[in-house]
Amino acid sequence: MTNMNGTVEQQHVDALIGIVGSGNCLSAGGDMTGYTVDYRGIFAGAALAVVRPANTAEVAAVVRYCARHGIPIVPQGGNTSLLGGAVPDGSGKAIVLSLVRMKTIHEVDPQNNTMTLDAGVTLHAVREAAEAAGRLFPLRIGSEGSCQIGGNISTNAGGTAVLRYGNMRELVLGLEVVLPDGEVWNGLRALRKDNTGYDLKHWFISAEGTLGIITRAVIKLFPWPAARAVAFAAVADPGQALKLLDLCKQKADTCLTAFELISAPALALSLDALGEDAPVSGDHPWYVLIELSSGQGQAQLDAMLLDTLEGAIEQALVMDAAVAANQAQAERMWLIREEISDAQTRTGGSVRCDISVPLSRIPEFVQAATEDVLREAPGARMVVYGHMGDGNVHFNPLRPESTSAADFLASHGAAITRLVDGRAAQLNGSISAEHGIGIAKRDELLHVKSRVELQLAWALKRALDPRNLMNPGKVLPPVGSLADAGTP
Amino acid sequence: MTNMNGTVEQQHVDALIGIVGSGNCLSAGGDMTGYTVDYRGIFAGAALAVVRPANTAEVAAVVRYCARHGIPIVPQGGNTSLLGGAVPDGSGKAIVLSLVRMKTIHEVDPQNNTMTLDAGVTLHAVREAAEAAGRLFPLRIGSEGSCQIGGNISTNAGGTAVLRYGNMRELVLGLEVVLPDGEVWNGLRALRKDNTGYDLKHWFISAEGTLGIITRAVIKLFPWPAARAVAFAAVADPGQALKLLDLCKQKADTCLTAFELISAPALALSLDALGEDAPVSGDHPWYVLIELSSGQGQAQLDAMLLDTLEGAIEQALVMDAAVAANQAQAERMWLIREEISDAQTRTGGSVRCDISVPLSRIPEFVQAATEDVLREAPGARMVVYGHMGDGNVHFNPLRPESTSAADFLASHGAAITRLVDGRAAQLNGSISAEHGIGIAKRDELLHVKSRVELQLAWALKRALDPRNLMNPGKVLPPVGSLADAGTP
Repeated sequence: MTNMNGTVEQQHVDALIGIVGSGNCLSAGGDMTGYTVDYRGIFAGAALAVVRPANTAEVAAVVRYCARHGIPIVPQGGNTSLLGGAVPDGSGKAIVLSLVRMKTIHEVDPQNNTMTLDAGVTLHAVREAAEAAGRLFPLRIGSEGSCQIGGNISTNAGGTAVLRYGNMRELVLGLEVVLPDGEVWNGLRALRKDNTGYDLKHWFISAEGTLGIITRAVIKLFPWPAARAVAFAAVADPGQALKLLDLCKQKADTCLTAFELISAPALALSLDALGEDAPVSGDHPWYVLIELSSGQGQAQLDAMLLDTLEGAIEQALVMDAAVAANQAQAERMWLIREEISDAQTRTGGSVRCDISVPLSRIPEFVQAATEDVLREAPGARMVVYGHMGDGNVHFNPLRPESTSAADFLASHGAAITRLVDGRAAQLNGSISAEHGIGIAKRDELLHVKSRVELQLAWALKRALDPRNLMNPGKVLPPVGSLADAGTP
Repeated sequence: MTNMNGTVEQQHVDALIGIVGSGNCLSAGGDMTGYTVDYRGIFAGAALAVVRPANTAEVAAVVRYCARHGIPIVPQGGNTSLLGGAVPDGSGKAIVLSLVRMKTIHEVDPQNNTMTLDAGVTLHAVREAAEAAGRLFPLRIGSEGSCQIGGNISTNAGGTAVLRYGNMRELVLGLEVVLPDGEVWNGLRALRKDNTGYDLKHWFISAEGTLGIITRAVIKLFPWPAARAVAFAAVADPGQALKLLDLCKQKADTCLTAFELISAPALALSLDALGEDAPVSGDHPWYVLIELSSGQGQAQLDAMLLDTLEGAIEQALVMDAAVAANQAQAERMWLIREEISDAQTRTGGSVRCDISVPLSRIPEFVQAATEDVLREAPGARMVVYGHMGDGNVHFNPLRPESTSAADFLASHGAAITRLVDGRAAQLNGSISAEHGIGIAKRDELLHVKSRVELQLAWALKRALDPRNLMNPGKVLPPVGSLADAGTP
């Protein structure tokens, strides 16, 4: 244990304890690793202290103290970022400000279809509270048990229901934010329409805590979709999958809730991990998982799905398909889809790329990126899956079985990322469709964004946080590097 | 004609002619009133010149010239703003930069459901081009023949299909903007998901040209909704209308496209103007117009609407209802709804308030605001109509028949605005749900926004436009007035 008595650091810690209480301020004397290392153990930093305020007033007091003393602040929700966005750097100079104690749901208004809540409420608790009121909160991502709504908003989370309901950005109506100077902006409006000038909430959504700390939000709820129908279908290639998607939109319109693409190697990983059989027999190169949902009758929705699949078989878009006969089978199909990511982590040796392109270019992207990767790393398994309905695929080449994870990543990791992201950029796509930027993808932005765009981002950052104390080093490439930025 | 030969003004005009050509630069020698006065003739200003660039490069050259010489710029689309947002002040120092010549549709991608187009394309042309590709562009507002997509984006237009499709903000995927220093930001992405840091497009949407000039956009298209079913129903009061709305959501889910409230005096005005009979016989205090639409069959949608209305009659939510038997009847019902605004203009003596509140508080708002207004102006006719499904009503008290328009507005205009907007603010609502701020509502923001919020807006404005040359005087209350702002 470091002895900090009498040091400036100890004075800071004492002052922070004065705001949040000693039980909610961890410092060098305690174990901070739950807050200074991300949940996958990839990004490890150090902190002056971990501070867990109980409410907005305490957050504001902590921020004011830090602003006065030039102490950087890393806001943290459930610490489930994949890109190191929520952990501090190694200097030990920053505090981590965890929203974990702020978990009150203040209001559920079923008639206005809104919920007002603290930033620290877990996504799981949000969904449960909505359901208890007969409403749906549609955000659906793997980490729902740990991730917090404030983090979901700060990173503009995506997931498997974006096709019908939009990204997190589209699900937010109002925010309360503690600004870098410790002032509180109360923008907790619960309105569908409000055209009174600049819409400030959008500044903070996807800013990953670099412009302030989201402390409360008003989010949208939806009628509970009583009926759900799920199918798994085998298709020849992403081009056929795209045609199938068009058909689904035409037949099912807004009932189409999810349309997930899955490559054969991705399916194999998941089935191995689960010890399950494929929902569709035979060997096929590609699969899709389709979900329809509605507030109307189950029978009607089932008929709609069958009609769609029959049309697809007639047009030879689908090689084989299985429809979930009940909700348990539907859950099993989803489990197979959702297991892919964890199965891949356990197997080791994946290069994870989270790209999007205009939907019409998905087939072209998959083909070109596959060729690029196989030229670079012959034998790599093309684990490709994700939210094709949104133009977003997780394109995650996996080591050949005969190559170790460490060797594969050392020899090919960086090159594969560059190749895949480069293809996405070339097709006017995004190198981070839903995972955000954090620290891991920050400097890649220099290759895909123009100097003008990065300077604009810095203009807002500087205007709100002139001393660069809010989550410094994240999202924005350093000012000094902008001269190197591409100019698309 | 003023002789400007040799003056600084003439030098500026000559330089601008050098960029856009003499045919596209009107100055003191020509009639500029089509650009310096709004279409209703309420806001009249003066300009140094009206400049009509042909493309982004010319816009950028004009902006660079003006930046160098400190010349203010008022960007203008179809000049259909209701709040004076697109006309210059009376000083004659600013130029009007009209996007009228930039009307190219660059790409329609039906598979990606996107259109890439110049800012000056009229909304009508957008909708036609979408339809020609079998797609819907859903924005629906009265001025579609004249208003331009750039103006729709700059003001975040709303209209009658927001309930299903969202505001203009939700319909934009990418933008190209000429910034106040004349640099061009190319953010023309056609992606549903792109989480690469700050989402700059949202800064410019609803900024009414105060942060830059939108020159191109990528907008979302939707499957063409082949089936449409429309009904007109009489209800006892807004509380019953709200219950009917809940029932519609439950029965029709996302097929519910519009839900418009209409008060009896609003209906009477429109029917008089059109020489039509009411779609529902008898005298009723309130009405709603309901539209369902879908890509599925007409018969199915008709059955859904009938089922909904039968449920409503069973629950005594509806006193009487008429269903459009064909598309011609549906158009007629819509015409009755859409005529209200013009009928009111012709009658004269309306105080127009465009408010929103949380949906659950609409009945409370209507009752309280009605009582307030009738206390202030006994005999005023309560013309109330609009997009109840979005929590947005146009609450437009009209002079008693026996009072002249001029007398009514002089005696009660300001007081009624204050009362109605005050009620909206008290119920956590908005004083401009869809019309924007322009010049007319600018200083009202001091009563309904906090100092913190207005200072944040100025922080961005100052960062991007430090010399305040882009549409100066619009949207943002003067910095000197912020100390007076309310602190909700």
